[in-house]
Amino acid sequence: MKIVKGLRLILLIAVVVISGYGLQTGRTEDSSLLLMPWPEHIERNHGKFVIDQNLKIYISGHSDRRLMAAVSRMVHRLGQITGFPIINSPITEIVSDEPTFRIHCIGAGEEIQSPDTDESYALDVNSQSVHLSAESPIGILRGMETFLQLVEMDDESFFIPLLSIKDRPRFRWRGLLIDVARHWQPPEIIRRNLDAMAALKMNVLHWHLSDDQGFRMESKIFPKLHQVGSKGRFYNQKEAREIIRYAQDRGIRIIPEFDMPGHTTAWLSAYSELASAPGPYQIEDFWGIRDPCMDPTRESVYLFLDQFIGEMADIFPDEYFHIGGDEVNGKHWNANSEIRDFKERHKLKDNHALQAYFNQRLLKILEKHGKKMIGWDEILHPDLPNNVTVQSWRGMDSLAKSVSRGSSAILSYGYYLDHMQSAAFHYAIDPQGKEAAALTDKEKTQILGGEACMWGEFITEENIESRVWPRTAAIAERLWSPTALKDEASMYRRLQFIDRYLASLGLRHKSQYATLLQRLAGKHDPAPLRIFADLLEPSGLGVRARTRKYSRLIPLNRMVDAVPPESETARRFTQLVHRALKDPAGSQEDIQRIREHLNLWAGNQVQLKPITRQSFLLHEIEPLAEIVLELCAKGLQALDYIVTGEIPSKEWHSESVGLMGRSGKPMAEMTVAIVPAIGMLIESAKANRRDQ
Amino acid sequence: MKIVKGLRLILLIAVVVISGYGLQTGRTEDSSLLLMPWPEHIERNHGKFVIDQNLKIYISGHSDRRLMAAVSRMVHRLGQITGFPIINSPITEIVSDEPTFRIHCIGAGEEIQSPDTDESYALDVNSQSVHLSAESPIGILRGMETFLQLVEMDDESFFIPLLSIKDRPRFRWRGLLIDVARHWQPPEIIRRNLDAMAALKMNVLHWHLSDDQGFRMESKIFPKLHQVGSKGRFYNQKEAREIIRYAQDRGIRIIPEFDMPGHTTAWLSAYSELASAPGPYQIEDFWGIRDPCMDPTRESVYLFLDQFIGEMADIFPDEYFHIGGDEVNGKHWNANSEIRDFKERHKLKDNHALQAYFNQRLLKILEKHGKKMIGWDEILHPDLPNNVTVQSWRGMDSLAKSVSRGSSAILSYGYYLDHMQSAAFHYAIDPQGKEAAALTDKEKTQILGGEACMWGEFITEENIESRVWPRTAAIAERLWSPTALKDEASMYRRLQFIDRYLASLGLRHKSQYATLLQRLAGKHDPAPLRIFADLLEPSGLGVRARTRKYSRLIPLNRMVDAVPPESETARRFTQLVHRALKDPAGSQEDIQRIREHLNLWAGNQVQLKPITRQSFLLHEIEPLAEIVLELCAKGLQALDYIVTGEIPSKEWHSESVGLMGRSGKPMAEMTVAIVPAIGMLIESAKANRRDQ
Repeated sequence: MKIVKGLRLILLIAVVVISGYGLQTGRTEDSSLLLMPWPEHIERNHGKFVIDQNLKIYISGHSDRRLMAAVSRMVHRLGQITGFPIINSPITEIVSDEPTFRIHCIGAGEEIQSPDTDESYALDVNSQSVHLSAESPIGILRGMETFLQLVEMDDESFFIPLLSIKDRPRFRWRGLLIDVARHWQPPEIIRRNLDAMAALKMNVLHWHLSDDQGFRMESKIFPKLHQVGSKGRFYNQKEAREIIRYAQDRGIRIIPEFDMPGHTTAWLSAYSELASAPGPYQIEDFWGIRDPCMDPTRESVYLFLDQFIGEMADIFPDEYFHIGGDEVNGKHWNANSEIRDFKERHKLKDNHALQAYFNQRLLKILEKHGKKMIGWDEILHPDLPNNVTVQSWRGMDSLAKSVSRGSSAILSYGYYLDHMQSAAFHYAIDPQGKEAAALTDKEKTQILGGEACMWGEFITEENIESRVWPRTAAIAERLWSPTALKDEASMYRRLQFIDRYLASLGLRHKSQYATLLQRLAGKHDPAPLRIFADLLEPSGLGVRARTRKYSRLIPLNRMVDAVPPESETARRFTQLVHRALKDPAGSQEDIQRIREHLNLWAGNQVQLKPITRQSFLLHEIEPLAEIVLELCAKGLQALDYIVTGEIPSKEWHSESVGLMGRSGKPMAEMTVAIVPAIGMLIESAKANRRDQ
Repeated sequence: MKIVKGLRLILLIAVVVISGYGLQTGRTEDSSLLLMPWPEHIERNHGKFVIDQNLKIYISGHSDRRLMAAVSRMVHRLGQITGFPIINSPITEIVSDEPTFRIHCIGAGEEIQSPDTDESYALDVNSQSVHLSAESPIGILRGMETFLQLVEMDDESFFIPLLSIKDRPRFRWRGLLIDVARHWQPPEIIRRNLDAMAALKMNVLHWHLSDDQGFRMESKIFPKLHQVGSKGRFYNQKEAREIIRYAQDRGIRIIPEFDMPGHTTAWLSAYSELASAPGPYQIEDFWGIRDPCMDPTRESVYLFLDQFIGEMADIFPDEYFHIGGDEVNGKHWNANSEIRDFKERHKLKDNHALQAYFNQRLLKILEKHGKKMIGWDEILHPDLPNNVTVQSWRGMDSLAKSVSRGSSAILSYGYYLDHMQSAAFHYAIDPQGKEAAALTDKEKTQILGGEACMWGEFITEENIESRVWPRTAAIAERLWSPTALKDEASMYRRLQFIDRYLASLGLRHKSQYATLLQRLAGKHDPAPLRIFADLLEPSGLGVRARTRKYSRLIPLNRMVDAVPPESETARRFTQLVHRALKDPAGSQEDIQRIREHLNLWAGNQVQLKPITRQSFLLHEIEPLAEIVLELCAKGLQALDYIVTGEIPSKEWHSESVGLMGRSGKPMAEMTVAIVPAIGMLIESAKANRRDQ
């Protein structure tokens, strides 16, 4: 295995050298550039291209409305980055000695973007000019985002470094699912997410528009769908078209998902005649797998869906249409004698076969309206033709299963943002990772890419941005950049930049955190609460669902809903401890910094107390505050042992084991993110014992 | 004088007692409530009205679309404040034992809001219900804002304290001018400012839509006005109508200003035939008083204005129309022989008389279109009838002059936000202050109120919010609340709350500061820059205009453009020093805190240096950083003298004088805001000398 890997590396280098690009391909360790996703090929040169107010923009080759809109957005963004007043409109003739950004688009590309759209571009920067060229306008869009991320500042000016980039995505499908059914998200939040996606070169927004808890799209043919199914919180068709256009302008396809035959309580609350069991139905308040389900045996259901899909097909231009298909528990099918008879008559041996029957009928309807089917991995069934796309969410294996039967597939397993994993966790998940090693090359190409999934149970308008960003940037890079790019430290360094970059773009993931802490702190100065909150991480969906019975009506206004998924403070502290322990003797300064941190967090408790005491929303964090205090004390003791070389007592040892045990468990649906680092300190102190 | 004041106080108390309201009227010192503006009458009781998700809303009396929209905004805002999922829609029948917010609106009020609109309301809160009643929907709007500001939290729940409020504004005109001509402000920024104004019960947006540097309103009759006069940055009529409607919904009138006959270069760049000197004209890039001016002697000018004002009168429903009228330098009038002849023919003895002639003609046109004239104080002239309203900006005296001739007037002198004064400075300015003491009661009532003015020379989309808010809240309180309310400490305590309240409402004054510092810090962590920046204050218009020749093209991307107008850190530090010096012996703790602050700021310089060194935008602050270091050192020395009682040397003394002299002057168009506090420490140390 090691030999193979080594060989691959040699081949890679060979390719790189032959194609004339530098050795930095896929490696960022030796680079000061903060690009994300990292480009396929990059060669750096010495010097810089100065960006000032006189920058000229010159466009040649193909041009259209979208391209010109993108240029004007880029100019506006450049104004945001530099603070320069609006830079001139594009010039029509090149004046040789003026610094110029030359854009050359070769062709018009497809009218409707698809997974096959060419997104490649080349960006060459010398001291006199920037050359951006691409086959299609989408490639130009991608290149502009690279250009904008490259802008930096030194003691003389804003500039971008001289370099040459040839870039294209590794995967054709780089998506984000946003669930607007469980908790409504207004159009401006969708737009802000699209802005961020464009900055990270993502190209699919998967819009989860219906579920048991809500139907979020206006239907003019079946108006009760949104009238009864949404409690007034839906997108009207004009808004939907505007969002689609907004996404198109940024090179992002929008795939609507109308989940069926399960997850359809909201449909059925409006049209109970579609259901497998007698109504009436009410919009579901609670999360989880519910029983209500469409009746796949009734022709009227297909007549309804034909009309509905026809209406939606006219609004959503993308060739893909997501029909959901997940988590059908079949209880209502089993309970209905007519459905049981139907299964027997049609030789459908189980409910999965019945669902496959439903999907075959659905596929015909979709094809009639010019659409391709995509669904969750439950749709996989021998009876279903292979011209469908499967979205794997329950494991990697369905990915391989899909492509080996000739279907195309995308990966979402490992990219569930509501599991509150670290960016590093997601970064390590590769749709063509070792699980795909046995696939043929042709099969591999049928793995189109992946999608980060932002399910809506535990997000509101207030915290969705902090749950999606910046972590999704790591997934965006995994799906765009070369396989070889795997260095976590480099990823985090660039992620930190992207985090701030997105804030300056208008994303609210950082400012909302402050606002939510302020609410929790009431009339108090929230600074001590922030110091404490920075050490916490929210539990994922699993822990939360087990802790209490959540529904749409439970407020998400607690600390767990405010703190970002990944503690940057704890991550850096862990790094610091790791480095210090490598060579405790030689890192006096690091030891001192660890001590300062622990003292700060321990000392902060005095200011924290009056805040938590006076806020009913903060009572639940008091035990966490106690644990943090204990952890800091234990960490300081461990440091003393490490520094002095003294041997900790047996009691100290067993106390530590106890503390680690207690502090590792979720409290108030959160965990203390410095636990592993404190554990390392304790282990190191214990090592004294063994060393003796 | 002292006797008169004392008498007034006694009378005030008498009125209060007679009217049955508590002694807390106009006084907040003994109150924990963080209301702003403070209500006219308030009586507190013990206990609380708990706010939970079951809060019912019941509406009786008059109801209309605007009122219902306001209720639904209030419910949404309550959701933002508490984090509760949407609270139920209004109920139609009261269930006696359920906590209910009862809203009773007596009448419909006027269709078009005017300065005479009744804005009064009563808010009574007992443990079972909240009663809000008002004569008109506008009063209900005002009362809802009070209700929202009252929401607080304790260890059990969100609640509002039991109380009884009777409230109404002292002045009928409480405005904010936003200049969108010098720097364009997009509709969403206007809307955010309207949100904040509504929260502070302000009722006029004065929209400065044209000036030498731009004409910002679409005209369909004279399309070159916006096409040539705006470089593409204007409000189309649909946008303008939407903004007007948005303001109406929040009880805010919009007064358009089209400044004439001066400040009209943008008009003249489109239609040079209106000018007093031959064209062609170009939009002006530089600030200041320019020569171009309309020709008041030509009939075609009035024909043009008649059509234009007719068009605008149809868009802007308010009865007032602002014609500007300021800063006509008359150079082009003097240079034009036909104009000179006209003056002679019409016995107009000077240019001011010529302008009065122009204004008389304009007044007739406005009256024809059903509008009242309002203009800057330069319009005051014996020839102009008194049915005009004068906006005093050059001093308090024109206010008295206006009302004594029978015109109504509003005050803006002292409310210029671009002068970068403190909130306390603005708070002390009263339109009926001592300058108005000699006026009759009738004359006093002709003082309609005032307007904060946000002129646009030194603001961009990035910093307008931090320049307007929270300072304007102090002006809003001055114009709404009783005269007797003057306590600065109370104002600042409540202003701090409003500052955070506005951030949670979506205002960007705080988040943009962070974004701008990040730009200045480049790739560095901006934390040390923030610690430093928090000690600075930007210079006002005067200093900046003298420092360099500013124009539309000069980037406003420097530290001076980022730091808030008033340093909260310095203000608190000054308070601390003040308190410590009152009794240096008895305030060991305060002395210690002063020392910690000075050490922090001095020590921060080490981290600051690598940031300033690497950012061309930060070079100019290096001397300021030096001064801060010197000030901290000097302050620490002074503290030592104060604590030990040792006598400072003559050299120390003269060094201190030198430092104070150097550090008081603006550098990089900023001042160091801790200078006065350090000065106090030095003075106190010197006192040792005299004490001996």
